[in-house]
Amino acid sequence: MQLTGIYPPLATPFVNQELALDCLAENVKNLAPTGLTGFVALGSNGELPALTEAEKLQVVETVVANAPADTQVMTGVAYESTKQALAFIQQAAACGAQAALVLPPSYYKSALTPEVQRSFYTALADDAALPILVYNMPAYTGINLGPDVAVPLAQHPRVIGMKDSSGNIVQITDIIRQTQHEDFAVLAGSASFLFASLCVGATGGVAALANLAPRACVELYDLFQRGALDEARSLQYRLMAPNAAVTNRFGIAGLKAAMTLCGHHGGEPRHPLSPLTPELHELVRSILAEAQLLPANAVSRTVAAGASP
Amino acid sequence: MQLTGIYPPLATPFVNQELALDCLAENVKNLAPTGLTGFVALGSNGELPALTEAEKLQVVETVVANAPADTQVMTGVAYESTKQALAFIQQAAACGAQAALVLPPSYYKSALTPEVQRSFYTALADDAALPILVYNMPAYTGINLGPDVAVPLAQHPRVIGMKDSSGNIVQITDIIRQTQHEDFAVLAGSASFLFASLCVGATGGVAALANLAPRACVELYDLFQRGALDEARSLQYRLMAPNAAVTNRFGIAGLKAAMTLCGHHGGEPRHPLSPLTPELHELVRSILAEAQLLPANAVSRTVAAGASP
Amino acid sequence: MQLTGIYPPLATPFVNQELALDCLAENVKNLAPTGLTGFVALGSNGELPALTEAEKLQVVETVVANAPADTQVMTGVAYESTKQALAFIQQAAACGAQAALVLPPSYYKSALTPEVQRSFYTALADDAALPILVYNMPAYTGINLGPDVAVPLAQHPRVIGMKDSSGNIVQITDIIRQTQHEDFAVLAGSASFLFASLCVGATGGVAALANLAPRACVELYDLFQRGALDEARSLQYRLMAPNAAVTNRFGIAGLKAAMTLCGHHGGEPRHPLSPLTPELHELVRSILAEAQLLPANAVSRTVAAGASP
Amino acid sequence: MQLTGIYPPLATPFVNQELALDCLAENVKNLAPTGLTGFVALGSNGELPALTEAEKLQVVETVVANAPADTQVMTGVAYESTKQALAFIQQAAACGAQAALVLPPSYYKSALTPEVQRSFYTALADDAALPILVYNMPAYTGINLGPDVAVPLAQHPRVIGMKDSSGNIVQITDIIRQTQHEDFAVLAGSASFLFASLCVGATGGVAALANLAPRACVELYDLFQRGALDEARSLQYRLMAPNAAVTNRFGIAGLKAAMTLCGHHGGEPRHPLSPLTPELHELVRSILAEAQLLPANAVSRTVAAGASP
Repeated sequence: MQLTGIYPPLATPFVNQELALDCLAENVKNLAPTGLTGFVALGSNGELPALTEAEKLQVVETVVANAPADTQVMTGVAYESTKQALAFIQQAAACGAQAALVLPPSYYKSALTPEVQRSFYTALADDAALPILVYNMPAYTGINLGPDVAVPLAQHPRVIGMKDSSGNIVQITDIIRQTQHEDFAVLAGSASFLFASLCVGATGGVAALANLAPRACVELYDLFQRGALDEARSLQYRLMAPNAAVTNRFGIAGLKAAMTLCGHHGGEPRHPLSPLTPELHELVRSILAEAQLLPANAVSRTVAAGASP
Repeated sequence: MQLTGIYPPLATPFVNQELALDCLAENVKNLAPTGLTGFVALGSNGELPALTEAEKLQVVETVVANAPADTQVMTGVAYESTKQALAFIQQAAACGAQAALVLPPSYYKSALTPEVQRSFYTALADDAALPILVYNMPAYTGINLGPDVAVPLAQHPRVIGMKDSSGNIVQITDIIRQTQHEDFAVLAGSASFLFASLCVGATGGVAALANLAPRACVELYDLFQRGALDEARSLQYRLMAPNAAVTNRFGIAGLKAAMTLCGHHGGEPRHPLSPLTPELHELVRSILAEAQLLPANAVSRTVAAGASP
Repeated sequence: MQLTGIYPPLATPFVNQELALDCLAENVKNLAPTGLTGFVALGSNGELPALTEAEKLQVVETVVANAPADTQVMTGVAYESTKQALAFIQQAAACGAQAALVLPPSYYKSALTPEVQRSFYTALADDAALPILVYNMPAYTGINLGPDVAVPLAQHPRVIGMKDSSGNIVQITDIIRQTQHEDFAVLAGSASFLFASLCVGATGGVAALANLAPRACVELYDLFQRGALDEARSLQYRLMAPNAAVTNRFGIAGLKAAMTLCGHHGGEPRHPLSPLTPELHELVRSILAEAQLLPANAVSRTVAAGASP
Repeated sequence: MQLTGIYPPLATPFVNQELALDCLAENVKNLAPTGLTGFVALGSNGELPALTEAEKLQVVETVVANAPADTQVMTGVAYESTKQALAFIQQAAACGAQAALVLPPSYYKSALTPEVQRSFYTALADDAALPILVYNMPAYTGINLGPDVAVPLAQHPRVIGMKDSSGNIVQITDIIRQTQHEDFAVLAGSASFLFASLCVGATGGVAALANLAPRACVELYDLFQRGALDEARSLQYRLMAPNAAVTNRFGIAGLKAAMTLCGHHGGEPRHPLSPLTPELHELVRSILAEAQLLPANAVSRTVAAGASP
């Protein structure tokens, strides 16, 4: 499994707070012909922790069913116990997922030492039906998985890579350096540090922005591959403000608003998260417009709060 | 529902990583005649986030079935979406729980503003079958629920109190001050600041230490009620080291080791958490002995790592 | 030297950004007959880090010269090197200071381990002309001095106590417990947790609020000493909002505004800190009024930004 | 003043805890012919906060006197008040410094909003005799200076650049993007993210590692300028472990040990910081050796703890 290029961590559409699998299917179909390598179902941007066990499997099934045959489908995994994580991965594998992107347990922070994290991931890698990617997301989990966790795990044949959403470029550089002779890929966890990560040796990225601007993300990757450093840097600059709008600045609500504005099914987040106010929705529109990410034929859809277009 | 006195947040016993409901039942029966006001099932100390949905309800049922009729049973609740939290509370109510101690959603940290938290708790208080207690546990959730969240919620007739595990005595004092004319109880979330919390107006405590030393915790509460300030302070001093051992210092593994040493069913935590090493187990024993919390007739049980006695 | 009762950490008045020693002298004289045990010159509230070396000594001299003979004068000390701290203490001793309240070095955070902190304080205690108090102020320094630093230092005959501004009541309780048989006093570092600290065994407090409401702070201390727990708790409640206004909520500017409103020389902080806006100044007035801390004869002084009354 | 290339933040040598200006002079002379653009006196690595006012000026004078005429000399500046910072810059200018690299005030954290920081730097830029560089060092100051501070300041003609030691590549990218049309240079604050910073548009770096490995740092810069991306990346990898050893891993003591090992005057840090233990000193040697940074003719100097060679 070659982990290169761009993967969107798919948003999960809801209509009236209920899972809208048809919208999800359409989003995947719309994203398919844009050069993406694959898809991540059930990432943080997919509101993984707000879904029931049954809903999670429906999401994986839907993504698998609608992704082109030559794309990879990974599933996010987030549990506090080894037992639960393993059970879910086996089910996701049965649904057709090809790899598991696994968040660390994070609740009992003081007890979850690097050694305990290594034991957690090793147990999964030993027993799970899918190859494992480590998923570092310290802003949400409060746990950082640094070289002391990632580098030893990279030697396990079933641990095939890592998504690092920390944005800590020193750590990313150091992990890549220490795993460069292993079969272990490091993917940037956001479009805001995609270019820098590629420069230091990352092989691709999992970027929320690819839910709405897949071609721009793929283009950044391709420009870098072609050695067009100046163009890649300029494109990276152009993506900074939109990326912030759909990640740390406006969160899931911003991502979904931007998706709607770009012609995808965005809609509302699940409560207690709430949609953007109309004012912020317009602000997101202007940020996308300034970055030339609004589709030319973007019909002005009426976006009612809580309604998917 | 009068929220005064001491409640243990019950540990959840496992044998060979599987839920051991018979052990839980025995623990509740053993704790019953010690002066406790009630029990919290599924708190942080109960490894709530490591349990499946089915297991959670089994735990609530078991505690309800074994708690004396004149004690209160609360259930912990931890979900990222309003929908899931509400669904669980209705089920727990059907199992006989009398109140819900609800952790805040905490994953999407930047989006989870005080306003969003208030909307979350208000939605539950409006619709849930059980009265609600706010559960502030910033060390684990990374979210602090301060006066700006707690004080407005205290005016809701179905929000009956708060467990504050922050240990922030200024915040505890300020919340009690601003809710002193409401029907709203503030409970200390650990035995280490139980005495100080009572002094500033708390009405009781939810203390991990009460899993193994219920009488000492109840005695501290009673001494304070009787105005025996010096004795209460001395007892508080005596409980500091054991409390640290079963909370922040050694975590769930320390709590379970101490329970075993005191004749209750402790056993192993669920993986990836692991039991104490034999050396640390002996250290916990000596801490309990020095604090005079080891039962006089404590038979020297053989404690194999990972085995419940 | 008996460290009991209430000490104000004196604000340092400026007029047109220049040290106003006459105003400082008047403040000390006005505070003298209110039951305070002593004074802290050059605390955090005295804008210690914004003063030159020459100014610092002038402040100490002025406080010593104006404090009644039966009060204690401590000086704050804040340096990154042992050498500088020691040199300053010798000079402050020559100016008449009776004790040194010493902040930890805090710049090279990762290198400043508990062991290094103990070596720093031990070197001062060994060689300095004044007895030493440890000054824990984690909110400003980013360094916490816990039991692992304070308890061993308490055994040094020249380390006579600690001011803990952390508000961490568990830590305060634990330090008092472990030093109860030493000649070592623990003082609460703010009026917001003065009552709770006294309950767990503190012997007094260093409280910014005592710059403007010395009698109320002393009364809280006296009520506690007399065993009037309910009155003490009520007074603690009354002081919460004013204390927040002169500490974490509005900072030095809030403290100085409140001092002005209560008839002391407050004035402007040193730049880049700036005085409160007129709106916030009025808010502070209303907070003080509601807490009955505005003097009855409070003439409505015209407070121009940057001008001392 | 063209801010490009590599600047070492010069370590400050001490012998028996006293400033050793002759050692400093020799270090500067040894570093001169290695392709460095200039020197930073009194940076964090120069133990700025451990020096007296008189010592600071001696350091600046010594560096100015020994730096080649075609190199730039900047001075670090660290004060909590505008008044002190301004006074020092005027003195440093009189000593021959050509630019001031100014840390933000950082003690009164809650009061030091982005607005206050902008007012601080603007006041200096308006009135100081030297052009100003903003110095972002959140790990030590606890204050981050992000785009909201840096971007507006970049428009001031006397604010000529920034050293960002945060390692936050998203922030660095965003500041460069928003100031790309200003006369404002962004310098990486450490060799560990020098390559990534150059890729996103930084013009150079201030790197502790350049105290001991100036040619390697300059080579990385030159390789990037020549477009030799793969060689630059490889060199970046090679510098990771040594850079960690002389910065966050072993701090000032590690830097000074490494300098000694490379034939410069390192010696002891000022107390309470202490030299490396012999074991750690050997570890630093092996790290430097593995990275091929030990000079071929490195005589095995006897390094007594606390003694400058």
